[in-house]
Amino acid sequence: MLKAIQNLGCSSSGWLLWKTRTSTSTSTSACKTPSFRRFRARSESSPDAASASSSSPVALQSSSSGNVRKISFCQWCGGPTKHEIPSGEEKMRAICTVCGKIAYQNPKMVVGCLIEHDNKVLLCKRKIQPSYGLWTLPAGYMEIGESAAEGAIRETWEEANAEVEVLSPFAQLDIPLIGQTYIIFLAKLKKPQFSPGPESSECQLFALNDIPFNSLAFSSMFVTLNLYIEDVKAGKPKFHYGTIKKRPGTSPSDIHAFTLDYHLQS
Amino acid sequence: MLKAIQNLGCSSSGWLLWKTRTSTSTSTSACKTPSFRRFRARSESSPDAASASSSSPVALQSSSSGNVRKISFCQWCGGPTKHEIPSGEEKMRAICTVCGKIAYQNPKMVVGCLIEHDNKVLLCKRKIQPSYGLWTLPAGYMEIGESAAEGAIRETWEEANAEVEVLSPFAQLDIPLIGQTYIIFLAKLKKPQFSPGPESSECQLFALNDIPFNSLAFSSMFVTLNLYIEDVKAGKPKFHYGTIKKRPGTSPSDIHAFTLDYHLQS
Repeated sequence: MLKAIQNLGCSSSGWLLWKTRTSTSTSTSACKTPSFRRFRARSESSPDAASASSSSPVALQSSSSGNVRKISFCQWCGGPTKHEIPSGEEKMRAICTVCGKIAYQNPKMVVGCLIEHDNKVLLCKRKIQPSYGLWTLPAGYMEIGESAAEGAIRETWEEANAEVEVLSPFAQLDIPLIGQTYIIFLAKLKKPQFSPGPESSECQLFALNDIPFNSLAFSSMFVTLNLYIEDVKAGKPKFHYGTIKKRPGTSPSDIHAFTLDYHLQS
Repeated sequence: MLKAIQNLGCSSSGWLLWKTRTSTSTSTSACKTPSFRRFRARSESSPDAASASSSSPVALQSSSSGNVRKISFCQWCGGPTKHEIPSGEEKMRAICTVCGKIAYQNPKMVVGCLIEHDNKVLLCKRKIQPSYGLWTLPAGYMEIGESAAEGAIRETWEEANAEVEVLSPFAQLDIPLIGQTYIIFLAKLKKPQFSPGPESSECQLFALNDIPFNSLAFSSMFVTLNLYIEDVKAGKPKFHYGTIKKRPGTSPSDIHAFTLDYHLQS
């Protein structure tokens, strides 16, 4: 159940094993770090910072990364906020100076589908920023009132006009720097029909050897697709948990400049 | 990998199999529903509506369930909001009438640990509302800047003064009605030491037969602990995905009045 992938090595996809270790020295927390890898490859043009979806909310949710200083007013009473660490807490919050309410900010979930069809996977080329013209799995922000699976189905319909059935959870990938968590499900087409939705310019099935790894939109998609290929090779899909940590000093637009920490499987 | 639990039946814990079917008729979405169960048992006193954590943010995050009407002002410019469906979208949003920004609301993640020690699990008795005096796994809202695993470790430290190592992802349980998703990890104590944190009155290891199912704080904990017991009996922990849907017309304080939909495993 708990097993670090130790043997990925370098694949045709550019999935480069940089370093593997089992100590906890790479993390400031006490968390086990069974697998540690660093990827460095091509420079591309789209940050995860405003990534995750081709739905309009994504580009607009400028507070996704949780800059508490940007919260200047109370959304409930309109009073000005102060920025302090509340009593009994440890993090800076925006606190209303009139009604006293605290504006908490939390990470957002991005939900999507990895659709398998005839040994191929369905990708969408983005017709919107960020990452215009680059390829992604259909995915977007989860909404209140829906489950992650329902959200992934909805996003797939919106971006690829495809009706899908969710088969199993495949990956949870946290990106702490920008306050996002990707939840990706394996899915299959209910009918062999798809076409670009309003935010996609193309939708296409790719054989695993033909996935456009040089033109992917986000780090999360790079990781997800590589993990999937490795699982297919091993003959058994698993559930993967991991943390994508951007390498300090690198451009946010370089989707390959990150480490994958805490990689756990079940 | 994809396998619905069809044989849980009724256990000593009160985990009651009400109905199992594989059709999609229980859902308004096109999602596969391989396992459907309804639980109805004891009435207890704490709703999931403000649940999930013994950390102070939980009780304060009153907008967790995403009532867009409560957002009356823009948190960036202070302008009054209007409540409309923005162009190109489908859901009602709070839109600033001055700067035009949209205040999106998204589900929140609650992260926690199911700690195994000498064939027992660690539970905390809550010393705060909601669910004062009832038992829970250590868990709380995930913060921006941390991973889910780091958040689960932090919450365990805060609530049980316990240092843990995360072993594997165990469950993701969505509760659409209240806009929460629980992410629970299996973990182990790094040292055999724990004691109540400021928000707990007791911390105790329970043998599986002694888990206080009549005094659990939240539906999510009821589901998690039952899935864990079933996995232990089967000899193999898995990763579980599911959706907790409260039964219409029941009190939110009845933590057993729900269905578990979309139960998928890997």
